[in-house]
Amino acid sequence: MFSRVGTLILLILMAVTAFGQKRVDRRVNVRDSVRAADQEWLSVFGARDLVRSVDYVLADGSILAPNTPIATGHEAIRKLFAEFFALPELKIQWRPANIEVARSGELAYSTGVYLMSFKDPAGKLIEDRGKYLTVWKKQANGKWKVAYDIFNSDLAPQGR
Amino acid sequence: MFSRVGTLILLILMAVTAFGQKRVDRRVNVRDSVRAADQEWLSVFGARDLVRSVDYVLADGSILAPNTPIATGHEAIRKLFAEFFALPELKIQWRPANIEVARSGELAYSTGVYLMSFKDPAGKLIEDRGKYLTVWKKQANGKWKVAYDIFNSDLAPQGR
Repeated sequence: MFSRVGTLILLILMAVTAFGQKRVDRRVNVRDSVRAADQEWLSVFGARDLVRSVDYVLADGSILAPNTPIATGHEAIRKLFAEFFALPELKIQWRPANIEVARSGELAYSTGVYLMSFKDPAGKLIEDRGKYLTVWKKQANGKWKVAYDIFNSDLAPQGR
Repeated sequence: MFSRVGTLILLILMAVTAFGQKRVDRRVNVRDSVRAADQEWLSVFGARDLVRSVDYVLADGSILAPNTPIATGHEAIRKLFAEFFALPELKIQWRPANIEVARSGELAYSTGVYLMSFKDPAGKLIEDRGKYLTVWKKQANGKWKVAYDIFNSDLAPQGR
């Protein structure tokens, strides 16, 4: 009798542990999907692919870039990205240092550092580094899109 | 018979609607609690209350301020806020334009605009306006704390 109860308890514990592990696995997988979205966005951004870069942002999403007002919606964001992509010899990299997904799985953020460089009108190399925070929302088709993206420089302000 | 089935369907519909309404109400209430936390943080920040301003941030939380590296943890954040509070005649306001809480209720963000002013060493009034994005996490005691806060200016960079 005792051994049957013991076996039952063991089975329940194993089931609970497996269930917990599955939940943890699922959340790790979801985090990986946000990491993939973050780096896929970088890949189309680095390639100056305007259409696909804008398409990563929700139709009512916002880009909060430094030294310019909030750009909300695809038209404003297309204009902002087009100006950015026009910078001579633009190079950009970013890497998430932390990603977190809500338990409910539809809201997430990624945050990390960026490095960028371009040539100014005089041909001088301008280098910048800083940090970013992106809020992602999962769409009905499972794709993550940007609701908000904001960044700023680590460096002292450069007067214009 | 039909009327009994009809009554049953009506009761089920009412129950489902009430349940849905309760969920919506709860999420509105949760959003209000994030709004309250956002504005309470402003209130202690505006009063230059260093201890309480730092305490709104998680022990491993980060402040991503412009023109300085990421400040992570209370010691680094205390130093950052202390420098900020030392600005002569500092005035600061911010107001969330959008707040969203994950369905699971433990993760949220607030975003909006800020206005600030202070006097520079020469006594000249410096005014700034910009935008911010704050990620909040609900603690076991129900209190919302800041995991990440980042902001930047709408204005052209001011050289130092």
